[in-house]
Amino acid sequence: MNAYEDGLLRTPANHQPMTPISFLERAARVHPDHPAIIHGTFRCSYRQMWDDCRRLASALDGQGIGRGDTVAVMLSNTPPMILAHYGVPMANGAVLLSLNTRLDPAMLAFQLDHAQVGLVIVDREFSAVMAEALAMTHNRPIVVDFDDPEYPDDAPVPKGAGIGTLDFAEFLASGDPEFAYALPQDEWDAITLNYTSGTTGNPKGVVYHHRGAALMCLSNTIHAQMGRHPVYLWTLPMFHCNGWCYPWTLSVQAGTHVCLRWVRAGAIYQAIADHGVTHLCGAPIVMSTLLSCPADQKRALPHRVNFNTAAAPPPEPVLLAMAQEGFDVTHVYGLTETYGPSVVNDWNSDWDSRSASEQAALKARQGVSYLSLSDLAVLDPETMQPVPADGTTLGEVMMRGNIVMKGYLKNPQATEQAFAGGWFHSGDLGVIHPDGYVQLKDRSKDIIISGGENISSIEVEEALYRHPSVALCAVVAMPDPKWGERPCAFVELRAGQPGDEAALIAHCRDLLAGYKLPARIVFQELPKTSTGKIQKFMLRQRAALIAQGQ
Amino acid sequence: MNAYEDGLLRTPANHQPMTPISFLERAARVHPDHPAIIHGTFRCSYRQMWDDCRRLASALDGQGIGRGDTVAVMLSNTPPMILAHYGVPMANGAVLLSLNTRLDPAMLAFQLDHAQVGLVIVDREFSAVMAEALAMTHNRPIVVDFDDPEYPDDAPVPKGAGIGTLDFAEFLASGDPEFAYALPQDEWDAITLNYTSGTTGNPKGVVYHHRGAALMCLSNTIHAQMGRHPVYLWTLPMFHCNGWCYPWTLSVQAGTHVCLRWVRAGAIYQAIADHGVTHLCGAPIVMSTLLSCPADQKRALPHRVNFNTAAAPPPEPVLLAMAQEGFDVTHVYGLTETYGPSVVNDWNSDWDSRSASEQAALKARQGVSYLSLSDLAVLDPETMQPVPADGTTLGEVMMRGNIVMKGYLKNPQATEQAFAGGWFHSGDLGVIHPDGYVQLKDRSKDIIISGGENISSIEVEEALYRHPSVALCAVVAMPDPKWGERPCAFVELRAGQPGDEAALIAHCRDLLAGYKLPARIVFQELPKTSTGKIQKFMLRQRAALIAQGQ
Repeated sequence: MNAYEDGLLRTPANHQPMTPISFLERAARVHPDHPAIIHGTFRCSYRQMWDDCRRLASALDGQGIGRGDTVAVMLSNTPPMILAHYGVPMANGAVLLSLNTRLDPAMLAFQLDHAQVGLVIVDREFSAVMAEALAMTHNRPIVVDFDDPEYPDDAPVPKGAGIGTLDFAEFLASGDPEFAYALPQDEWDAITLNYTSGTTGNPKGVVYHHRGAALMCLSNTIHAQMGRHPVYLWTLPMFHCNGWCYPWTLSVQAGTHVCLRWVRAGAIYQAIADHGVTHLCGAPIVMSTLLSCPADQKRALPHRVNFNTAAAPPPEPVLLAMAQEGFDVTHVYGLTETYGPSVVNDWNSDWDSRSASEQAALKARQGVSYLSLSDLAVLDPETMQPVPADGTTLGEVMMRGNIVMKGYLKNPQATEQAFAGGWFHSGDLGVIHPDGYVQLKDRSKDIIISGGENISSIEVEEALYRHPSVALCAVVAMPDPKWGERPCAFVELRAGQPGDEAALIAHCRDLLAGYKLPARIVFQELPKTSTGKIQKFMLRQRAALIAQGQ
Repeated sequence: MNAYEDGLLRTPANHQPMTPISFLERAARVHPDHPAIIHGTFRCSYRQMWDDCRRLASALDGQGIGRGDTVAVMLSNTPPMILAHYGVPMANGAVLLSLNTRLDPAMLAFQLDHAQVGLVIVDREFSAVMAEALAMTHNRPIVVDFDDPEYPDDAPVPKGAGIGTLDFAEFLASGDPEFAYALPQDEWDAITLNYTSGTTGNPKGVVYHHRGAALMCLSNTIHAQMGRHPVYLWTLPMFHCNGWCYPWTLSVQAGTHVCLRWVRAGAIYQAIADHGVTHLCGAPIVMSTLLSCPADQKRALPHRVNFNTAAAPPPEPVLLAMAQEGFDVTHVYGLTETYGPSVVNDWNSDWDSRSASEQAALKARQGVSYLSLSDLAVLDPETMQPVPADGTTLGEVMMRGNIVMKGYLKNPQATEQAFAGGWFHSGDLGVIHPDGYVQLKDRSKDIIISGGENISSIEVEEALYRHPSVALCAVVAMPDPKWGERPCAFVELRAGQPGDEAALIAHCRDLLAGYKLPARIVFQELPKTSTGKIQKFMLRQRAALIAQGQ
């Protein structure tokens, strides 16, 4: 033992579990009067937010929620969703599960059961689907209704009936703001649970820990160039990788959350102009929405706005149009398993002098590791050796570091596979360029990304296979100007069966959430390899031609 | 055990030791051609810097430096000093000791022996004192001379002779840039050693770990509002708390280090203008230096410059003058034991509308915890209970969190005392204001006890600073036969101002209770440490002699 290890131990004075909760504690102490949340006519200061988080933790404690219990939320980007990111772990160390609000009842029921959810908070926009889901669960969580006072009377989606035994506002008010809230016992403690869309079989429950969440807060702040008091508009769903950890990140610089129930171009421009929004994130669909905004709904931007986008590389015309509109677009990449973005297209000022198309090509690359990711590499998954940095040799994108998940809940086999060889296997294929920037070449081949949501082609195929006329099928991504991608199905029919596109889509509608339905169904023989494997890459090319009307 | 703990273990894929070395790795990969270091006519890119750090690690390895060995440097703010911050720990996990270049031979010898230094790199500015020190050590380190090619021929301090067996340039060139450098095995591994100035007895060796250093990098970047590619001027000695961790911090945003051997006003203005400096740090003496710069040596600043200052609260006239010169001053506070600044006077925008004197009073407070410090409190050291947040009740300032040292090297008793009760005891006395901001009132040993009443030396100093003729002052206890102690003030006058003891005491009478008035005011230059801190213990000795009529 050397002298530097002799007796110099971790003690409470020099070692404390990292947690994003401490950033909110600090923001409330330093900037108590600064606006923390804006939602319609609702305003909340950091003092109030901190009190409310402690009230929520206290109210959950009152319902018997304890360490390692799961609290689910089925909420839009509204104030309770932000509070839940702090209040749930502060309730004796419970874990937050943010349900994807677009899921069908069966999938919701699976997640509620798998995570053994003890209490669920449901926005009345989703009470009907949640009621169906709860009817299917074995588990019986306590249900709390959130009746949003800001819900517009003339909303495109009418508000459903209450289905719970408790009302969120009363529930919150019942909590004690002086509650002795929990900080993690260990920074490795779980903070949230996020289910992947699941390419095969059931979705996997990705567990985040406090350490990773806290490091994401610091890294996001630096990568997104957030100065003092950023104003952040919630165009990215908070149920998606915990909104890339921004519900916690904003506390670092005491920023203001601007809530948004529905992503509509006019509302985005209005929020930016009214509240001086500095940052927002979203899938390419959000950029399309902005760019197709009718002129009479547009508002002048108060300053240049930082837009972080992921899911698909932004194409040149979109980048140019966004720049012209006043948005500085940064391309990031990550997975549910990496807390959202763990790779960033860090801009090199040497590239400023390149042509617009060269710049777009450079920006289309996924990029380099986030500050808190130790390693990003493209490896041959057989040998675990790096592929040459030549921009052409394909390998699997792998990561390791402190913003990789704790593992999959109750799924040791999947966890072991994901971490085989000491790296997290992204399942995405890519190349590494001579300058060290990584570029994806094939999203893990079965996934379709529509409006920022992952759709498993296998899930759609399974639905199709349930129809008696389907002999063989394959679903691939078809480019879509609005959604980025939509599923396109190729089907071989059983002998003598008619090909009825409308009937097959109607059949799928009974089995799948609306956004997962095939945009097109094409009846043809499927191209196969000599060993009988369907050649999806050929179908992808065909789908692209169909999308172009050819 | 709950499901979130079942089998979800730390693995190399999801848990890596945090270390600032990874920030340099990343900067060199992402911005290889960006300027990393400027020193006179010397330029070095991030690619070159990364190669040189690996060369240094390799060369140290070649000299048998291993894990837990100490490598000392006696260097100015020059390129080898920056390289050493990375290259030493990269050498099999060795530990860097930066020697205070203003120490006397006996103190240097003590530190070289206590830390069992295996190799020391010495700038030829300091070869004479180091030769004396080495003659006194029991330990016989390998000595490497650094002969700075940028050392001016007409330097005020002539360069000494070489005293080593190796030359730094050759030593570095002998290293292999492909060396298999070390990352820490554990983030709790030591990275550096810094001796406190030690007002009584032998200095204590403060051990920093990789975890704390890495967190300081992220926190410094955010608190100092460092955007992409900051340009940092080295007016703070890097031997002082590892330059508040800025040698590592700059790598986070791939910033440029601008070296400076001697802190001279003209050179500072020139560097800012020539290189577009965005940030610098320093003791109040650096602000005085800047403000007293002759007009013909001044250069126009290219933009507003961020100046972080510590050690003493910046007085109102200095803040106003600095703002007029184009510097945004942030007041930070910390100790060697907290990696430099762990407390920051985070500015509240509500204060913008206050008067200049109110703003100065608010800025004179030390402030709130750094992002990576879990807790900052003012506690009664007897009961360990918080004092009321009333801005008047005195207690001891205490900290806990991840930017508190690992402990004191080979000094378990001092470590235990420092961490008693689960908090780091700063030894500084202060109050906490109703808004949670902490303000120092005194070092515990600097309190003057007169007739049983505590007198804060800082309060008396603040009164003196309000007089226009006072440039710098320090108040200490003077033995008094009747009262036990009384304040004795030492004052440096502004150029051309007369020293009028009676007038100054009359001025204080308007601001202070009678028992707090200085018994004597002595006009003289104040003794300062190498980092610009006033050496009150010397003044205390002087005051004792004065009291004896000597």
